[in-house]
Amino acid sequence: MKIYDAATAPNPRRVRVFMAEKGIQVPYEPLDIVNAVNRGPEFRKKNPMAAVPVLELDDGTCIAESVAICRYFEETNPQPPLFGTDARNRAVVEMWNRRMEFALLSPITDAFRQHHDFFKGRIRQVPAYAEAQRLNAEDSLQWLESELANRHFIAGERFTIADITAMVAIDFGRVSKIAIKPDQKNLARWHAEVSSRPSAKA
Amino acid sequence: MKIYDAATAPNPRRVRVFMAEKGIQVPYEPLDIVNAVNRGPEFRKKNPMAAVPVLELDDGTCIAESVAICRYFEETNPQPPLFGTDARNRAVVEMWNRRMEFALLSPITDAFRQHHDFFKGRIRQVPAYAEAQRLNAEDSLQWLESELANRHFIAGERFTIADITAMVAIDFGRVSKIAIKPDQKNLARWHAEVSSRPSAKA
Repeated sequence: MKIYDAATAPNPRRVRVFMAEKGIQVPYEPLDIVNAVNRGPEFRKKNPMAAVPVLELDDGTCIAESVAICRYFEETNPQPPLFGTDARNRAVVEMWNRRMEFALLSPITDAFRQHHDFFKGRIRQVPAYAEAQRLNAEDSLQWLESELANRHFIAGERFTIADITAMVAIDFGRVSKIAIKPDQKNLARWHAEVSSRPSAKA
Repeated sequence: MKIYDAATAPNPRRVRVFMAEKGIQVPYEPLDIVNAVNRGPEFRKKNPMAAVPVLELDDGTCIAESVAICRYFEETNPQPPLFGTDARNRAVVEMWNRRMEFALLSPITDAFRQHHDFFKGRIRQVPAYAEAQRLNAEDSLQWLESELANRHFIAGERFTIADITAMVAIDFGRVSKIAIKPDQKNLARWHAEVSSRPSAKA
């Protein structure tokens, strides 16, 4: 098995951090996304959406979508649990992971994709939407600041995939000047803690 | 337990169709989304994102996000499986469900939300993005037409949550004049079949 990867993109990093937390070693094959190798016909056979990461299993099955890849390894390597611990907690973790996707990761990636030259000619860009999503991401950070007053991690007292999604999103915000503000102390405390885990270097 | 619901919105329908496929009865409490009751302070205690559906458990835990709600019931009521049958198949189903969300449901809901009066003053609207997403949704339908040449349902030979997401997305496309085209025979065959299931009326 192997994982098609790209060092600078946020979604591949979600999977690398997840794998590091699990202590699972899988070979990574870097794709040249700068030269759009992921958009060529060969890679589209593996993922018609032309996105990385993609997990290729030994039988040739290709699993795209970061969370689908992570969930596969959660099932084959259950410890430590990163998707929750029982039916109710797993629903809570899924809720928070999706909130971090819809309220942070999507706005923050849109703030880049919808105006940056890197995506010119690759997607239908709407620069006004980049700006709207930048503001939406800032609103989300302010909301998350208040949420984190009440608990240690995004989805409760345990580190989960929701923390990975939020950390990767916020770190990717740098390219669009979206960042934790000086008065957002709870966010800063949380971000310092998740960033100090060895997995954050992945 | 109960589910906060809204009859006309696409995400609540995803959960109702899922529950009908499972044969699970849960009381639904309709929220007056036209008058923005979901955006008021009382409902935000249940879901700060102000969105329906929300599952409220008997212990008061509130689970928002349609797929988190569905996954909770997949775990408590495993038959029939709608998220896949083993680790690999569950990863494939998750991949396809997410593709249907990112390539169909998001573009189709954006095509409505980003320009329609219903959302004026409720979100930062960018009408040019509504149009870009309408075109993206049409591209996705053309791609899905080719995918469905090779198999019965979206994620393989079994009906899954990915079919529910795709059906609900396409049916909601009506309000933005996004529809299956006359020459998209595979999509039409699939849509007629999933729409003929009793759950489609939910």
